[in-house]
Amino acid sequence: MSRGYNFSAGPAALPLEVLMRIQDELLEWRDARASVMEISHRGAAFVAVAEESERDLRDLLSIPDSYKVLFLPAGATQHFAQLPMNFAKPGQSADYILSGYWSEKAFAQAHASATSRVAASSAESGFVRTPPRAQWQLDPSAAYVHLTSNETIHGVQFHDDVLYDDIGDTGDVPLFADMSSDILSRPIDISRFGVVYASAQKNIGASGLTIMIVREDLLERCPDSIAPIFSYATFAKAGSMPNTPNTFGWYVASLVFEWLKEQGGIAAMAERNAAKANLLYGHIDASEGWYRNPVDPDSRSLMNVPFTLKDPALDATFLAESKAAGLLALKGHRAVGGMRASIYNAMPLAGVEALVDFMRDFARRNG
Amino acid sequence: MSRGYNFSAGPAALPLEVLMRIQDELLEWRDARASVMEISHRGAAFVAVAEESERDLRDLLSIPDSYKVLFLPAGATQHFAQLPMNFAKPGQSADYILSGYWSEKAFAQAHASATSRVAASSAESGFVRTPPRAQWQLDPSAAYVHLTSNETIHGVQFHDDVLYDDIGDTGDVPLFADMSSDILSRPIDISRFGVVYASAQKNIGASGLTIMIVREDLLERCPDSIAPIFSYATFAKAGSMPNTPNTFGWYVASLVFEWLKEQGGIAAMAERNAAKANLLYGHIDASEGWYRNPVDPDSRSLMNVPFTLKDPALDATFLAESKAAGLLALKGHRAVGGMRASIYNAMPLAGVEALVDFMRDFARRNG
Repeated sequence: MSRGYNFSAGPAALPLEVLMRIQDELLEWRDARASVMEISHRGAAFVAVAEESERDLRDLLSIPDSYKVLFLPAGATQHFAQLPMNFAKPGQSADYILSGYWSEKAFAQAHASATSRVAASSAESGFVRTPPRAQWQLDPSAAYVHLTSNETIHGVQFHDDVLYDDIGDTGDVPLFADMSSDILSRPIDISRFGVVYASAQKNIGASGLTIMIVREDLLERCPDSIAPIFSYATFAKAGSMPNTPNTFGWYVASLVFEWLKEQGGIAAMAERNAAKANLLYGHIDASEGWYRNPVDPDSRSLMNVPFTLKDPALDATFLAESKAAGLLALKGHRAVGGMRASIYNAMPLAGVEALVDFMRDFARRNG
Repeated sequence: MSRGYNFSAGPAALPLEVLMRIQDELLEWRDARASVMEISHRGAAFVAVAEESERDLRDLLSIPDSYKVLFLPAGATQHFAQLPMNFAKPGQSADYILSGYWSEKAFAQAHASATSRVAASSAESGFVRTPPRAQWQLDPSAAYVHLTSNETIHGVQFHDDVLYDDIGDTGDVPLFADMSSDILSRPIDISRFGVVYASAQKNIGASGLTIMIVREDLLERCPDSIAPIFSYATFAKAGSMPNTPNTFGWYVASLVFEWLKEQGGIAAMAERNAAKANLLYGHIDASEGWYRNPVDPDSRSLMNVPFTLKDPALDATFLAESKAAGLLALKGHRAVGGMRASIYNAMPLAGVEALVDFMRDFARRNG
């Protein structure tokens, strides 16, 4: 075994226990006498996986009964475009809050599907903070307000006090959140949202699957004028199986949900995630400028920690040596440069400790 | 090991060698020090998988350079709806040839996206044959002509002589084929088609992935008016990675392509598939009415063999006993009833021999 600590932003590290279970049952799953990849999604065996996974997700996030849970094809980018197709009336626009690269992407795809508008943006800051609530210019006739709870590239996150206190009630306009990179990392008050959705490849499982939690009454908005396969109402009615779903991805998600329950649930994960992030940010801030994270402390992501080196000429050496030390995928996104440590649920505290030790040693050696 | 012979129509059996390789390298893939599920799709390691898989598929199917190969999200049903969005001009209709359940589904989704018309149908026959070419009423101004090369449920397939001789030249109107359930089972003359596409979960790999082979000039039709994530031109320009693809599904496909090359390629598979189908149909036809397949011999599918028992009261016993004998998933689709044996590439001749032995014995015992 020479697995490293994997800081990839996504597809991201999975819990080793989950991978070992997949490996163990890959040729014969339960009593199917076949792999889980080889069985009908409509058979009782796979339907049981679907039901268990939904039940576990509902437990983990305390999802109210008035919300549907959908397991959808493709990644979040497709759903950026599908949201307005489903939830905006013809001519009705939606409000977008821009806090980084991914909320800009969400807006661009949505705008191509239907008129959408930017209700707030922290672009002028270089996306080092979420846009302060006082600056949001909401349209009371908008179809919804959309935000990205965590920005994987800029390392900017809506903290709980902003999400649940500052934002306040958006009235009849429901709040939609892309939580691709922080779902299951902390408790969510689902009742504050109309739609919460997330790509699977960060905190849920393997890529090629999107999970959506949608307030049931909103599904009445899904118009008959779009092809049925693009309608979330179709998926809700058919138990997310109007056609063959990504069964392997769904199965992996079900195992991750089980693992999360074994770990003590979301409150326990939130505590661990805070400890990991505190350790890393603490080290960066105490490095006397050797390492730097540009994000306002009030908006710093607990999942993705971008940082730069005092001397960018050392970037390549840092990457080569960290990789050799088993600290994988630390290269920052080209949009911001430098380094990035993604520390999702599957990253143990020991991995962050190893990274901090390496950073300390690297700085000392190159001081 | 108690794996059975798996006759599932999809998600379907995978080659045991492929499953064993996935199992073997599940925790650490190549020198990644991580699972293939845990690495960035944009890293050199995964990009190599993407490139190898495309090269192997091009080799296997002799795909001309003037065609692009796309690895797309979701199953074929989504692409039923996306085809007219990409390839029909506003107001332009497309012609659909109906030969069973899946071509009807393709038409319904396409019609919801854009006006489409039925140019031929064998519905009146109960879908026991492909619609004879002489009855097709093609519109010379159609965006494309669409057919389903193999009907998984009705067990109806366009045989080579129909595809390459009877259909003839469709002029400036390109021929599109959904080959979800028979791609890679026989050689294809790609140059006769504008688009060939297929869900992965039958002859390619795991579900949640669609492969499309598209004549490059047709991509110029993809309009800027749709959201970029729905445009095939976007995928073509971005090497099928405008966003995170289903990396695990893509990896499984790459292993299946390698396996097919090791088996001698598509010509060798076609020979084996013909032998398997001949054995099964031969036994059905020689059973003196004990078993019956309703499809015209000229349209019988070499991939999916639906059959009924003389006495439907014995169906439940047949299913229970065949399952106990390790012959899995033989229940027919509710739309046609009875039994169905799906005998894709991954089903060895020994599996069909075991089925025929069981059928002979069952008939004798219940004669």
